[in-house]
Amino acid sequence: MSTDTLRYKVYTLLEKDESGSGLGRKIDLFLMLLITVNVISVILESVAYIHTNYGLQFWLIEFFSVAVFSIEYALRLWTCVENPKYKNRRFPRLVYMISPMAVIDLLAILPVYFIMFFNVDLRFLRVLRLLRILKLTRYSTAMVMLLDVFKEETNALLAAIFILLVLLVLAASGAYLVEHNAQPDKFGSIPSAMWWAVATLTTVGYGDVTPITIIGKVFGACITVIGIGMAALPAGILTSGLADHLRRRREALMSQFRLALEDGQIDEDEEEEIEALRKELGISHRAVKHIREVMHQEAKSRAKLPHCPHCGERLHHH
Amino acid sequence: MSTDTLRYKVYTLLEKDESGSGLGRKIDLFLMLLITVNVISVILESVAYIHTNYGLQFWLIEFFSVAVFSIEYALRLWTCVENPKYKNRRFPRLVYMISPMAVIDLLAILPVYFIMFFNVDLRFLRVLRLLRILKLTRYSTAMVMLLDVFKEETNALLAAIFILLVLLVLAASGAYLVEHNAQPDKFGSIPSAMWWAVATLTTVGYGDVTPITIIGKVFGACITVIGIGMAALPAGILTSGLADHLRRRREALMSQFRLALEDGQIDEDEEEEIEALRKELGISHRAVKHIREVMHQEAKSRAKLPHCPHCGERLHHH
Amino acid sequence: MSTDTLRYKVYTLLEKDESGSGLGRKIDLFLMLLITVNVISVILESVAYIHTNYGLQFWLIEFFSVAVFSIEYALRLWTCVENPKYKNRRFPRLVYMISPMAVIDLLAILPVYFIMFFNVDLRFLRVLRLLRILKLTRYSTAMVMLLDVFKEETNALLAAIFILLVLLVLAASGAYLVEHNAQPDKFGSIPSAMWWAVATLTTVGYGDVTPITIIGKVFGACITVIGIGMAALPAGILTSGLADHLRRRREALMSQFRLALEDGQIDEDEEEEIEALRKELGISHRAVKHIREVMHQEAKSRAKLPHCPHCGERLHHH
Amino acid sequence: MSTDTLRYKVYTLLEKDESGSGLGRKIDLFLMLLITVNVISVILESVAYIHTNYGLQFWLIEFFSVAVFSIEYALRLWTCVENPKYKNRRFPRLVYMISPMAVIDLLAILPVYFIMFFNVDLRFLRVLRLLRILKLTRYSTAMVMLLDVFKEETNALLAAIFILLVLLVLAASGAYLVEHNAQPDKFGSIPSAMWWAVATLTTVGYGDVTPITIIGKVFGACITVIGIGMAALPAGILTSGLADHLRRRREALMSQFRLALEDGQIDEDEEEEIEALRKELGISHRAVKHIREVMHQEAKSRAKLPHCPHCGERLHHH
Repeated sequence: MSTDTLRYKVYTLLEKDESGSGLGRKIDLFLMLLITVNVISVILESVAYIHTNYGLQFWLIEFFSVAVFSIEYALRLWTCVENPKYKNRRFPRLVYMISPMAVIDLLAILPVYFIMFFNVDLRFLRVLRLLRILKLTRYSTAMVMLLDVFKEETNALLAAIFILLVLLVLAASGAYLVEHNAQPDKFGSIPSAMWWAVATLTTVGYGDVTPITIIGKVFGACITVIGIGMAALPAGILTSGLADHLRRRREALMSQFRLALEDGQIDEDEEEEIEALRKELGISHRAVKHIREVMHQEAKSRAKLPHCPHCGERLHHH
Repeated sequence: MSTDTLRYKVYTLLEKDESGSGLGRKIDLFLMLLITVNVISVILESVAYIHTNYGLQFWLIEFFSVAVFSIEYALRLWTCVENPKYKNRRFPRLVYMISPMAVIDLLAILPVYFIMFFNVDLRFLRVLRLLRILKLTRYSTAMVMLLDVFKEETNALLAAIFILLVLLVLAASGAYLVEHNAQPDKFGSIPSAMWWAVATLTTVGYGDVTPITIIGKVFGACITVIGIGMAALPAGILTSGLADHLRRRREALMSQFRLALEDGQIDEDEEEEIEALRKELGISHRAVKHIREVMHQEAKSRAKLPHCPHCGERLHHH
Repeated sequence: MSTDTLRYKVYTLLEKDESGSGLGRKIDLFLMLLITVNVISVILESVAYIHTNYGLQFWLIEFFSVAVFSIEYALRLWTCVENPKYKNRRFPRLVYMISPMAVIDLLAILPVYFIMFFNVDLRFLRVLRLLRILKLTRYSTAMVMLLDVFKEETNALLAAIFILLVLLVLAASGAYLVEHNAQPDKFGSIPSAMWWAVATLTTVGYGDVTPITIIGKVFGACITVIGIGMAALPAGILTSGLADHLRRRREALMSQFRLALEDGQIDEDEEEEIEALRKELGISHRAVKHIREVMHQEAKSRAKLPHCPHCGERLHHH
Repeated sequence: MSTDTLRYKVYTLLEKDESGSGLGRKIDLFLMLLITVNVISVILESVAYIHTNYGLQFWLIEFFSVAVFSIEYALRLWTCVENPKYKNRRFPRLVYMISPMAVIDLLAILPVYFIMFFNVDLRFLRVLRLLRILKLTRYSTAMVMLLDVFKEETNALLAAIFILLVLLVLAASGAYLVEHNAQPDKFGSIPSAMWWAVATLTTVGYGDVTPITIIGKVFGACITVIGIGMAALPAGILTSGLADHLRRRREALMSQFRLALEDGQIDEDEEEEIEALRKELGISHRAVKHIREVMHQEAKSRAKLPHCPHCGERLHHH
């Protein structure tokens, strides 16, 4: 039991469940800082000059970081059973170990152990350490919302990517047909032409490869026009998804207000609930103020419902 | 009659009408795999090295594919009369033959027959075989929805393309006027200048052709600014169309819930209908959960409608 | 009076007021075709080879076109007083002459008269004739709607362009400060640096001018990131405006349905009104079908309004 | 007191509180013109030729401008206490001095004083004077609205920029891994590869650095595709924010109409309030006309509410 209570305390420290705890917040900031330092050091280490002259300093940073991240990983693995998501499963720790965050945490520390025990290509493993940057995503509400939108619109996004693939193949083939004689090095095969096609359809337009023949330019012009349509698809999907998300957030807050205004007033407890919901959803104060006004107006007009002149009383439930 | 029942069975296998049938799904996956293998083989065949060394293997793949696709085409042609769309028309099979999917299926197998019986340019026919990739579009709900949006917004998209054409002509003419002396090879005629204009208006910006004179650069800068407005048009049209589509889907599901909640509860049959509609529309579980909550709330407040104080009973229809 | 009736007839022919008239439609198609032929001929004439060899044919096309357009301009000028917009103004024809369409029509025929009577730079006047392409915009509903959206969102679009100008000046100045020593030819003054800045902020990215110094590249990277925000502004403005437009169109149709369904049924006259409104607004059949279903449902639930059990009758107006 | 009344008069002149005052508007236009002249002169001064030959004229413009801006700054500092925002704070003038607009106003005049009293790099200070262009932003309603949207969506935009940074680091590392042997000068370290990565992810695509190896091109193609998703994020965020803003503006106007139509009519005072609100929100006349129609319809159907058959009178509050 004493271990359980300790485990629960550590769990709340790590998972930010009680945001009142100053220590939990300090731990978060420390980990965020350490990850950022790590990412910058990996980036700088790739510059030959810096790697030669400061190699030792970087190794010390790395050693310290891996120590901290190993302890963090062990602690998260230990306390994960306190999380309702994992409590009631068989082999909860194994299930946790295959969750995305846990995999990233593991990939963040494995490379160094590899280097210590095997002699592998440093460069590749060094880059793998950059995946630690993804650990930062759990620290921002707006970010979690954006990633939520990506997750929810996955089907539509995959369909958009498939349409892009189809157009890529057809565009590359067309360019190959018309340009392979004039530029056999750049358009000599469909895979070669694909480099031009993908740069054009995504409107990146490097310019290192462009059609030379007149038919090639006409065909290329058509592909560029189709390209802006393609660039529009993901934008449309993400925008609709975002707007939908925002609408649902707003409706959730409106429901809360409606419930609170049932008795015509919002007392202190109800204000606290509303503020907690505002924080959880990440809605700005200004938007809440506007919803508050709209809901008050709605309550007022509900209060003006029909009277039955005969009865004289308001035809209203309470 | 025995032929009819067999024909109907084959029809359901091909058209996925009864998704319960494991065999129908296996056939779909097999055809999807064969199309993908085909597309990849056409792409690889265009690389001279691969074509020389593996020509025979590719011809075998091609021969097998054409055999399968020919049988598929014959079967679809035979069973198309089971489809309500074609049943009651005169010459149903001819009408089917001119539908887009049937034309693509035919173009997918004709080239090989051409090569076998005539001596035509292999390269062009090989590329024509790539159109088989379009056969894959019938296999994804999200994709069908995206293509639906394209179809519905066709008028607006064509208007946007027309605006782009007008700007293209005016931009190319302006560039021709100011740059034809300085760069007679690149801006020597309006068609030449169109290459720069289309790359700029679509923000692809290859950079192989750019204005040199000062007036040319000022004019070019204005065209780039107008360009981002142009790139915005298709995005806006597709986004509005998508948002509209999603709204209608959501309203359809809300109607279903409203009907089911008329008696205050959702029983098993109603749950099944809702689930079937969710699958058909391709709405995520999370969105359905939110709609469910909103509909329940709506039913609850409907239940709190005015009392006639005189009668004391709830003024509600059922 | 006989002139008035003739004038009114000519007015309806030109302005498509009675779309039943087959002749009006034929005249429209003829004018559209002539404008298109003109635009193509101006484009082709700029190619030196074609201009040398076919100069006479082009001059004949031009002569014929100017004759037709002159007659058209004269007729429109004559009949413009039938238009309610101009009927009741002082000097109606002068007011018409300064309307955008009339100015374009005039600019379309003046150049040729200039050439005939003065000796002016042919090239410039030839390009001016391309403005006739703008005469085509009156022939498409979707286009009129898009131009409407542009007109309505003009304030916001101008503000977006102003923000772009501010960023342009600041970006060019920053690049000038850091790169003028390393690349005195390309970044030697703020106007020079503006060429790079405008290509980057609009994401066109020609690549003919790029920063070389490290600070320059860091600064340049920041400007590219700000660039995608800039490209987003016009998209957002146009999309919101379009969505708003579509919403208002849909609400107008819903009002029409609501009015028609007041008596619970839609009779033939009401169906005709609805169809006329659908054509005028350019809404697709499928969208109308959906609105029809929603409105029927709304009417049904309106019919299920509270009963006063005491009275037994529906508490409904009729 | 006489100073107070004079101070209040000057305050209204500067802050456009009474837009009826012709003098206030003239002062605004004069300041706007002076700022624009300044910005253009700083831009032109950077061209060596112009700086050499017209140096004196530019110095005179600068001297005059700084005199005017110094007087303006002093006046704003003096009258800021009339602003409700600053009236009731301790040390109101200090609070005003750290507000964004005041800081910009100060930065606009300091450089010249620096030059006069110290000998600092003219070029950098000259560019600093360009910040005056930001003083223009207080003069446009649509602009204030756009900046409002930016401010409100700051969290989401920062999250989008963070996602871009993560992708930047991962894309640069991947390109570094696969291309550092083939192009050691351009992809020799992760910071080097970041130049290519940022140009590609933002779809700017300069083309001065592109992958050469086949794996590099495949990886590069994937990054371009992810790039159009990234360019979509800010667009989606800004569009949702704008649409939300417009919706709230529209609802505010609808509330005003609803209040005014409570007595079934809109009298002159109510029309004035509506027009004042329309100006303040910057809504177009056409949109107001549409809202007016919708609100009238709503009032009409409210008037058709249930009758109590027993009583025969309309069950309506007034």
